[in-house]
Order: sequence, then C-alpha cells, then structure tokens
Amino acid sequence: MTKPVPTIVIGRLPIYLRELVRLSKEKVSPTTSSQELAQRLGISSAQIRKDLSHFGEFGKQGTGYHIEYLIEQLKKILHLTETLDVIVVGAGYLGHALAHYGGFQRRGFCIAHVFDNDPEKIGQTMGEATVQDIAELETVIQQNQIKIAILAIPTTVAQDTVNRLIKAGITSILTYTPIHLKVPEHIHISYSDPVVQLQQMAYYLPKQEVA
Amino acid sequence: MTKPVPTIVIGRLPIYLRELVRLSKEKVSPTTSSQELAQRLGISSAQIRKDLSHFGEFGKQGTGYHIEYLIEQLKKILHLTETLDVIVVGAGYLGHALAHYGGFQRRGFCIAHVFDNDPEKIGQTMGEATVQDIAELETVIQQNQIKIAILAIPTTVAQDTVNRLIKAGITSILTYTPIHLKVPEHIHISYSDPVVQLQQMAYYLPKQEVA
Repeated sequence: MTKPVPTIVIGRLPIYLRELVRLSKEKVSPTTSSQELAQRLGISSAQIRKDLSHFGEFGKQGTGYHIEYLIEQLKKILHLTETLDVIVVGAGYLGHALAHYGGFQRRGFCIAHVFDNDPEKIGQTMGEATVQDIAELETVIQQNQIKIAILAIPTTVAQDTVNRLIKAGITSILTYTPIHLKVPEHIHISYSDPVVQLQQMAYYLPKQEVA
Repeated sequence: MTKPVPTIVIGRLPIYLRELVRLSKEKVSPTTSSQELAQRLGISSAQIRKDLSHFGEFGKQGTGYHIEYLIEQLKKILHLTETLDVIVVGAGYLGHALAHYGGFQRRGFCIAHVFDNDPEKIGQTMGEATVQDIAELETVIQQNQIKIAILAIPTTVAQDTVNRLIKAGITSILTYTPIHLKVPEHIHISYSDPVVQLQQMAYYLPKQEVA
C-alpha cells in the first residue's frame, strides 16, 4: 500500500495544470522547468518537484518537463481525461455568473443542469443549460449518474439541499453558502466564501489604516 | 520579537469567527468549548486550541470560551472592529452576485464602489453602490484611502487592472480571474477559481465513474 498523497499537494495540482496549459498556448518552448513554473506561480521549485514526485518521474535533469506530456499526466491523475458533468443548484446572480463563466468546458467540466424552485426562472436559458424545477433534482442526478454539484442557494435551505444531493448520489460539492455543512465522511465538500478570504487578508492590513 | 503567526492559522480564524457568531445567535449557552467548535467545524479540538493560543489565553479549563468575548478578540486580531470599504471591479453577473450578497456588511466589509468600462452599466445601481466609470478608479481609491479590491473582470484585462489598483494604493486583492497575477511581495492576493476547486475534488471521485 502506498501512502495517500496529502490533500494540500492535490490542491496544488490544478494550479500547475492551469499554468502548464497557459505555457503550452504561449508556445515559447515545448519544455519547461520547475524553476520557470516556480517563478510564474510564486511557489518554490523544490516544492513543485516534491509535489510532482508523488506521482512518478516526469522531468529529466537538464531538459526539464515536456509540457504536453505533463499536462496529459496531470489530467489523468486528476480524472480529467473526459468531461465531467456538473449540476448547479440556484439560478440567481451567482448561478448566472457560473453558467456564463467560460472556463469550465475547456478545463474538464460541463454545467449540464441548473435547478431552481422559482417558477419564473424555470425554463430560462442559462449559458448552455435550461433551468429545471428543483423537484426533478433526484431524478436527473440518478438518471445521469452525476457526482458533482455546485450550490448557489440561500443559507436557509443549504443543509436540506445538501442532504437531498447526497441521497441522490452526489459525492463532491462546491458551495458558496457561508455556513459549515454537515456531510458524511466519504463526501468531499469545498467552500468558497469571499468574506472569509477578505477577512484573512484584513489581518495583514497596515495597522494605522484600520485603527 | 515574536514569530509571525503561520498564514494557515490566520486562514482558519475567520472560520472560527463565523461559527462563533452562529453559536451566539443560537443563544444556547454564553460559552463554548474547543470540543464543540471541533464538532461543528470538522477541525480537531487540539488544532483549535493551538491556533487560538498564538494570540493569548482565551479559555478556562472547565468553563471553556466565553463566546461574545472570543468574537470580540478575533475581530480585533483580524482588524474587523470597524467596517472596511471594498471596491469591486467589474459589473457583470459576478459583480452583481457580489454586490447583492448580504454577508459583507455584517461581517466587516462594505462594497463602497463598483467600477466598469461599459457605458451601459455605468450609473446603474448594484446593491448599495452605483456603477462608476473605471476611468475614476485611481481617484476614488486615493480619495477614500481604500486598501481592498475584488476583481470580477475578464482574464485579458486582469494584469493591467491589478497594476493600476496597486499603483493607486490597494494592498489586498481578491480575484475571480483564473490566472496567476504578478504582484509585488507586500501585496496580498487571494484567488477564487471554481474550476480549481472542482478539479481538486475530481481527484477523489471513485475511479469507475470516470473511466
């Protein structure tokens, strides 16, 4: 048995992937180095080499990493070789922002279904999807074997909705709701809360500015 | 000289604060314990005690933490005793979602100004703010001594805009643009990229589902 790779290392792989794809588009060279990635990402080159070494030997001393090869390997490691269907729950401003964000499709995800409980929103087109009645949530998840959901709904209904999603087969949840949600241990949940991010930075504000 | 508190510890303080405020609203008891917080947050009680111990002695053996006192102390530590003005650059769907998100004001921030370069958007009301011409960006930042900005703009103009923000006096930036931005060392930048969060979770998807 090999040891599981630390979560924090997995967390950096998408950052490496995103930068490698940018490097590939710039077409300056077919190869890169941990030093070049380090400089572009603000992460040390030793850290990058150590992170990648969890998954094998990708670079050669002297020639570095072959960009396209490393992109393919990272996609395999992250299960991104085929597009994964995602549902969005909530068709408000945030749901709209997500549905219109161009970055999903080319980075491995398709917003396949959007749900809301507002009769005025049901039937509307949002990006590539049409807003569906939240009553159909379970049926759609099960019929399409969808595993990933994004929550863009009010705090008051978040826990109930999460319970429904998990019961229907969802295993990975990205939530914009600013509360801690209770989920079983095998469920992966990722939080996005702008205020938490602002509060973290506020700590570093010069003291005279906030006195 | 005391050692700087690790960034990862600072990162957890807003999570503690958010949960303490929820506990306070529930009014079950005026005190809580690291065990109760641990259970609600999915973080170990030892970790919580260790994180808080960086800033002093907040709890008592046997009686635990006084909730209101700990809230006040965490707000002081995070520089959240007064409301901090924030600007949002970009008045698209994401800018709208941010401006209408109710969680800023009661958690220490005020979206004081929103900017866009689209003449059709300039002058529109968004939440509490009116969309202003991006040409006024520098003047508004300097006149109001604003330090914090949220970027909700297309990738292509992100780096140029960041350069303008920093030159005008912004020191903390939360960006939704999915590229690494180059900033001087004294600037704090926080990234929010839904695709990175989805990719991190995709790693943990059951293998048979993605074959």
